[in-house]
Order: sequence, then structure tokens, then C-alpha cells
Amino acid sequence: MFFGLNSRKLIAYTAYPVLKSYKKHIRYVSGAVFSACFIYYKTNYVMMAWTSSSKIDTTKFMAEPVTDIEILQKNMKDMKTKMELLILKIQFEFCKALKEEEDSNVNFVVDRWTRNEGGGGITCVMQNGKVFEKAGVNISVVKGVLPPPAVSQMKARGKNVKEGDVVKFFAAGVSSVVHPKSPKIPTIHFNYRYFETETENGDKEWWFGGGTDLTPYYLNEEDAKHFHRVLKEACDKHNTSYYLDYKKWCDQYFLISHRGECRGIGGIFFDDLNTPSQSKVFNFITSCANAVIPSYIPLVKKHKNQTYTNEEREWQLLRRGRYVEFNLIYDRGTKFGLYTPGARHESILMSLPLYAKWEYMHKLRENSEEKKLMAVLRNPRDWV
Amino acid sequence: MFFGLNSRKLIAYTAYPVLKSYKKHIRYVSGAVFSACFIYYKTNYVMMAWTSSSKIDTTKFMAEPVTDIEILQKNMKDMKTKMELLILKIQFEFCKALKEEEDSNVNFVVDRWTRNEGGGGITCVMQNGKVFEKAGVNISVVKGVLPPPAVSQMKARGKNVKEGDVVKFFAAGVSSVVHPKSPKIPTIHFNYRYFETETENGDKEWWFGGGTDLTPYYLNEEDAKHFHRVLKEACDKHNTSYYLDYKKWCDQYFLISHRGECRGIGGIFFDDLNTPSQSKVFNFITSCANAVIPSYIPLVKKHKNQTYTNEEREWQLLRRGRYVEFNLIYDRGTKFGLYTPGARHESILMSLPLYAKWEYMHKLRENSEEKKLMAVLRNPRDWV
Repeated sequence: MFFGLNSRKLIAYTAYPVLKSYKKHIRYVSGAVFSACFIYYKTNYVMMAWTSSSKIDTTKFMAEPVTDIEILQKNMKDMKTKMELLILKIQFEFCKALKEEEDSNVNFVVDRWTRNEGGGGITCVMQNGKVFEKAGVNISVVKGVLPPPAVSQMKARGKNVKEGDVVKFFAAGVSSVVHPKSPKIPTIHFNYRYFETETENGDKEWWFGGGTDLTPYYLNEEDAKHFHRVLKEACDKHNTSYYLDYKKWCDQYFLISHRGECRGIGGIFFDDLNTPSQSKVFNFITSCANAVIPSYIPLVKKHKNQTYTNEEREWQLLRRGRYVEFNLIYDRGTKFGLYTPGARHESILMSLPLYAKWEYMHKLRENSEEKKLMAVLRNPRDWV
Repeated sequence: MFFGLNSRKLIAYTAYPVLKSYKKHIRYVSGAVFSACFIYYKTNYVMMAWTSSSKIDTTKFMAEPVTDIEILQKNMKDMKTKMELLILKIQFEFCKALKEEEDSNVNFVVDRWTRNEGGGGITCVMQNGKVFEKAGVNISVVKGVLPPPAVSQMKARGKNVKEGDVVKFFAAGVSSVVHPKSPKIPTIHFNYRYFETETENGDKEWWFGGGTDLTPYYLNEEDAKHFHRVLKEACDKHNTSYYLDYKKWCDQYFLISHRGECRGIGGIFFDDLNTPSQSKVFNFITSCANAVIPSYIPLVKKHKNQTYTNEEREWQLLRRGRYVEFNLIYDRGTKFGLYTPGARHESILMSLPLYAKWEYMHKLRENSEEKKLMAVLRNPRDWV
């Protein structure tokens, strides 16, 4: 969209870290001007600093917002704007926190992409690090008209739509999966999203969904308690029943049915949240999203220098195979994404690990640490 | 079912190779007696040889047939019997052919399992070999009542059933995937199956389906031509339009839609085949199944002693990631299997490779061998 670039074409901002030093001097910068800066940089033009009247500080984002910054500025009270700014901030802070645990030579690749049908996203991926084998932090802000299967799904979920309705939608979300190299560090996943729909009659609906969950390769009870405690504290600020309800929902959602085991030790998960009010639910998911770093980064720091054996690594790869099974067979987001024409599959599939393994009839040793983990995956436990 | 063993419980015949030496002396042996032998062996009883009047030679099978041997004997002209005997033979011969290419210390694990709802199967898997990283050869012979979603699917496929009908079914098939260790040897997959359905009104239908397809990691045109030529010869004996039609169907079926690329260089694929007659279609799929060994084993022999680099191995793992994507997202058999309550997921998922890899935004070098393969996967070619 910027400067005549084909909106479907991926704009690869791999040079973004370099750009950032320039951007310190252009603290307030509009979308178009940022793109211009990028082009100037590439063509070795002398870049001119420029400030608009915007209050939005894009130096705290991984790339320029998806929505034109002028539009965001004019609609600061609109939930669409609030959500986009929240996910941009969460993405930046989480990438920064991960980067601080990683070798200085390993960086996030930042891909900012746009979508013909409307909107786009920013995909940040760090691969082959010393600490993180593959870490992806995505945001997307998309809008358009729902395809008929999605309308049926809305209806099934109790939304006020009729089969055959033309439904306009807006969706904004942040989604992340971190697969560390060491089997001693758990994998984390989180996703927070906001939806708006509008039928031809003008019926409008909105809701939030999301969650954070942990997938350890070895069970460390202190880690599990810490992780769930931080999530519970975030929930309790808003409603003391949230943690219990959403912990249970999480255990149910992340179930690999054909194996009768959960993907990990859970966390929280919820969907279709539209009470008590838009701002209250937004405040709730803001707390949840802000709890990601304190729930996870201490576990990375604690385990990243521990040694591990080849057997432990092979076990981690087998568990990653299960992660792939869940994501490709059951995860609604992945399936919905891959079946959507024009979807950016590289962003959707960034959740898959760098390596995974499938062994026929893998046997667990009696009284092993692996068996201890499996007992919890088969019978989720209460941690706080 | 045998000797009060819970039919749902897996009967792991990993001791089968040991048993086989006994079986030479009990060439004609019924299902129950075979199981009795197994129990005698386990409990160190002195085993007594016993012969029945059967003409079925079970020494040419990987394990005792799924259906009681007496029932098979009494119904030798029934297509259900013919199909079960064919798949038992194909399984045995293919396992033997693979074993001959492998190190003598590496053996197939043979698991014979039964199903509460009716029927069962024999799963043979060889893992961690010098030539074959993971090779699975499955047969299953199952019967029962179709669950409602399967009935809808039948209807959608033009079968003569009504929504809500109680439909009895019988299905027998052989299915195999071979993932060699070396990226120079292609992966093969084949599956041949027979279905019968019967509604409450007594309306009966039957059909065959199947196919054989090749997934190379590096394109070798001679291999591709040889493979397709052998399949074409098998088809041409029955109908000269079969090869062209089923080659096209194969390219369409094994498409990884979200990537716009085929899983491999194809082969043949067909479904719902019920003309010109039951015996003629059976003869056709018999030819196809018999063509598996001559289509594939020469490629194994040709490439198994070639050296390969680490980069070539990593490329193979990436392509195996795509194989996993196809099988878990699109393959009807896998999806149908995993969503069926009581399904044996270890047998269904034996098709997944030992190791797989997913890299974000993998880039291909210009004029590389990898790029040459991708050109063919994106635009299937005619090979004969």
C-alpha cells in the first residue's frame, strides 16, 4: 500500500534493526514517512528527520503499525486502535525480553506484510539461537468479509448471524510460540485477540479471546507453580473466578484427543468474552498479556545454563512432534488460517518447532522423569 | 478375542520373529491355535504342532490373519476374503523386500491388534535402520456401523445413503510409507483398500480405492521415469486410460494447498472405483499392489550406497516437514482415522517420519538441485 508496493507482496524488514538507530531520531513518524525512510536507507539517500503531531511512539514497536498511523491517531478511543497499539507494544516488549536472554549475534527477522483483502501483520522470528531454537512473535490486524464457512462457524458459536449473511469483520491479535533449544526450558505459547463483526442489518458484535500456556519437556513443580501463580494474579485483579474457569478451559482446549494427553501443563484459555464491558475485558486481556514476561522469562533465566543429555534432547523432539500434531490437527487458529485463501502460511506455521520427531510405540522407562511428565499431561493438576 | 484377551487391548507380537521358527512346523494353523502357541511359548509350555485342513499358508504372512482363518476358508470366493488374503500377501512381500535391503540386525516390529467394534489389523514397523529410518507397512480389516459424519461423507461422495441411515460397513486395506535415511533415496507411499456398505433397506455398495506415489528429496529424472513406467504398465494391462486419469488424480490429491506445491512427484491415485466389475477392479488393484516392489526397490538399490552431505540431510528434513503437513492437514485417511473413536493412532501415525524440520522462510539457492525439485513439485510433469 505504501508507495505503490503491491499490498499482497511481503515487505521484508530484515534491515529493521539497522533502521532503528535512525528511528531514535524520528520518534514521531507516520506510516508513509517510515516507509519512505526505509526506501531512503536502501538507496543511500540522506534521510531527513520528520515529526508529525502524533502521540504514538513507533520506536517501541517492531515495525510500523499495520493501520495507517493517521487513522490510528484520529480514532484513539476506538477499541480497534487500542487493540492494535496493545499488540504492537506486547510484541515489542516480548521480543526485547527474549533478545536479552539470547546471544548478541542472533536477531529477530522482522517481516511486515499486507493483505490484498485488507490489513496485514508483522511477523518476528528468531531462529537457530543459542537459547532459542525458534521463537515467533506475530501480530495481525485484518479486516474484510467473512467467507461462508466462517459465517457458519460464527453461527455455531452463538453469534447473531444467519446462513448466507454477508458479515464484515475486523480481527486483531498477537500470537507467539517460543521453542528453546534446551529441553530444560519449557515452550511457551500465548495469543490475545479481538474480533468485531457487522451484518448487513447493522447488527454488531465484538468479543475477545486468548490465553497463555506452558509446555515443559521435564516437569519442574516450582516452575509450574510460578507460571500458574503469575497468571492467577493477572486474572484475580479482574474477577476471582476467571483463573479457575480459564485454567479448566485451557486443559480442555489443548488436549491431543487421539492420544488422551494434554499438549502441556496448561495455563489459561478463553474465547467469546464480551462481558461485563468492552473496556473491562480489554483491561483483563491487557493484564494477561503483560503477565507473559514475568510468567516465563524467569524460567528461561533459571534453566538456560543447565546441561542436558542427548536422550533428553530426543525426548524433547518427540514432545515437539506432539506439539505439531496438536497445532496441525486440532488448533482452530491454525486450521482456520491455512484454509483461508491468501493467508500467509509462513506466519501461521512459525509456531512449528525447528525439529520434531515421531517414533513408533515409544516406550517410557519406569520411574523416569519422562513418565512423571506424562502422568501430569494425562491428568492435569492444580498448581495454585 | 482369542483366549479371553480384551479385544481393545493391543496384542504386541514383537516376539513374532522368534515364533516364526516354530511356525515352520505348524504350516497350517488356525487363529486360535496360533494364539495358543504364543501363550505356550510365553509360559514355556511344550508346544504341540497342530494342523487343520486349511489351504491358507500363514507362513507367508507377517502374522495370523485378522479374520478367523476358518471363516476365511469357508468364504474363499467372497471379496472380503480375497482382499484380506491379498493385503496379507502384499504386506509380507513388501516387508521382506525392504528387509533384504537393510542391515541384518534391524527387524520389523509386528503388532497384531484387534478392535472392540470389530476387526483389527497388523502393523509392521522398522525403525532406525541403516537404510530405512522409518518404514511402516499396515493392514487393517475392520467392520461395524458408520458414525453419522462418515455417513454424510458417503452421501457427499454420491453413495446411495440417507442422512440418519444406519450403515454397516466393511473395510480392508494395506497402507505403507517408507522413509529412508539417505536423502538420495525417495520416500514411497502406497495404499490399496476395499469397502462394502449396507443400509437398513439392504442396499449394498462396494468400491475400491488406492494409489502409489513417490516423494524424492532430489529429482532424478531416470528414477521418476522408471517409477511412473512401472505403474503405467500395471495400469495398461487393465485399461489404457487408467494411468493418465489416475496420474492426474494423484497430482491433484497430494497437493499441499497452502504452499501451492505437491508432496512429491506423484504416481497414481483413485477412489470409488466400482466398474466394470468387482473381479476386474480387484485384478486391477492386484496388479497395482504387485507393482510396488518393482517400482521402488530398484531405486533403493541404486542409491543406498551413495554419500550425502549435512545440507542434503537438512533439506530432506524440511521436505519431511511438508510431508507431515500434508498428512496431518489434508490426508483424508489420516483425518478420518484420528477422529474415529477407538482408532489405533500409533498405526495411523506410523506414516510420519522419524525426524522433520520447519524453518521460517527457507530460501532456496539459485540453480540448486533443491530448486530443480521444487519446480517439478509446483508444476507436475509427465514422465512417460
